[in-house]
Amino acid sequence: MRLFDGGRVPNARRVRVFLAEKGLAVPVVPVDLGRMEHKSAEFTQRNPLQRVPVLELDDGTFLTESVAICRYFEELHPEPPLFGTGALGRATVEMWNRRVELELYSQGQAAFRHGHPGMANHEVPQIPQWADVNRGRALASLRLLDDHLADHRYLAGDVFSIADITALVTIDFLKPARITVPPELAHLARWHAECAGRPSAAA
Amino acid sequence: MRLFDGGRVPNARRVRVFLAEKGLAVPVVPVDLGRMEHKSAEFTQRNPLQRVPVLELDDGTFLTESVAICRYFEELHPEPPLFGTGALGRATVEMWNRRVELELYSQGQAAFRHGHPGMANHEVPQIPQWADVNRGRALASLRLLDDHLADHRYLAGDVFSIADITALVTIDFLKPARITVPPELAHLARWHAECAGRPSAAA
Repeated sequence: MRLFDGGRVPNARRVRVFLAEKGLAVPVVPVDLGRMEHKSAEFTQRNPLQRVPVLELDDGTFLTESVAICRYFEELHPEPPLFGTGALGRATVEMWNRRVELELYSQGQAAFRHGHPGMANHEVPQIPQWADVNRGRALASLRLLDDHLADHRYLAGDVFSIADITALVTIDFLKPARITVPPELAHLARWHAECAGRPSAAA
Repeated sequence: MRLFDGGRVPNARRVRVFLAEKGLAVPVVPVDLGRMEHKSAEFTQRNPLQRVPVLELDDGTFLTESVAICRYFEELHPEPPLFGTGALGRATVEMWNRRVELELYSQGQAAFRHGHPGMANHEVPQIPQWADVNRGRALASLRLLDDHLADHRYLAGDVFSIADITALVTIDFLKPARITVPPELAHLARWHAECAGRPSAAA
């Protein structure tokens, strides 16, 4: 088994933090996105979508999509549970993981890809207006998370989960998207300090 | 328990098809999106993101995000399994469900929201160029699905899963987004006829 990693991109970091929380070590193969290695013919065999990360299993099967890779490890190594426990617990983690991904993450990604000069060769055409719209929406999403964290320790409740990992890697990725987390969002700041202080966050 | 439904929108239909595959009946409360009922103060209490569907549990808990609602029912009623079985099976369903959602579904949604005159009050501002870009990307995504279905009966392999439901409701939603599925994609057409012929597709 080996993990084709993408360095600083949020989805690659999400898998690394997840593995660190599980206490698992998987051999990593770096993929140089700056040199467009993920667009090569060889990499396209691994993932026709030309994205990282990709997990290669011992039988040669390729698993892609960071949450699918995380779920594979959750099934093989259930402790500590990071996708929730019980029907409602699992559904709640799914809900918050998706809320973060489909709102804040996709807004941050659009702001970055359409607004950052370094992405001009990756996102064709760049549409600066779309970056601006998404910067505004990301601020609204951050406020919604802050409201929720006013009376929840973690996103899905009392227990740390993949939803927190997704939100952590997303928020840490907002800087290159030129989105500043408003300092008055105190609940979000409290939650971020707690998650960023876990040993896994260094992964 | 009751399901706040949204009629023709793909995520509402996804939950209805899922419930039909499970043989479950849940009382439905219609939500009139045309009249902006999902933006009302009352509905915002149920889902701060102002989206359908929403599942209200008997204790008053609100579950949102269609896949989270489906996963809740999967946990309560595991048969027939629609999220896969075994570690690799579950990860494979997750991968294909996400590939469809994050590519074809989000492309179709962008083409519809930014390109359809009827969405001018829902998507502000509409950016026609973004609709056009996504129409082109959706065609590439359809070709990728066709390639995959050349040697797979269903998206995640031999067994029908939520990934097929997601793809079915997405493809049936491409018409209002003014995206035509190229008729030469024979494997996709074969798969679509099979899925659309299941009794659940009428839900």
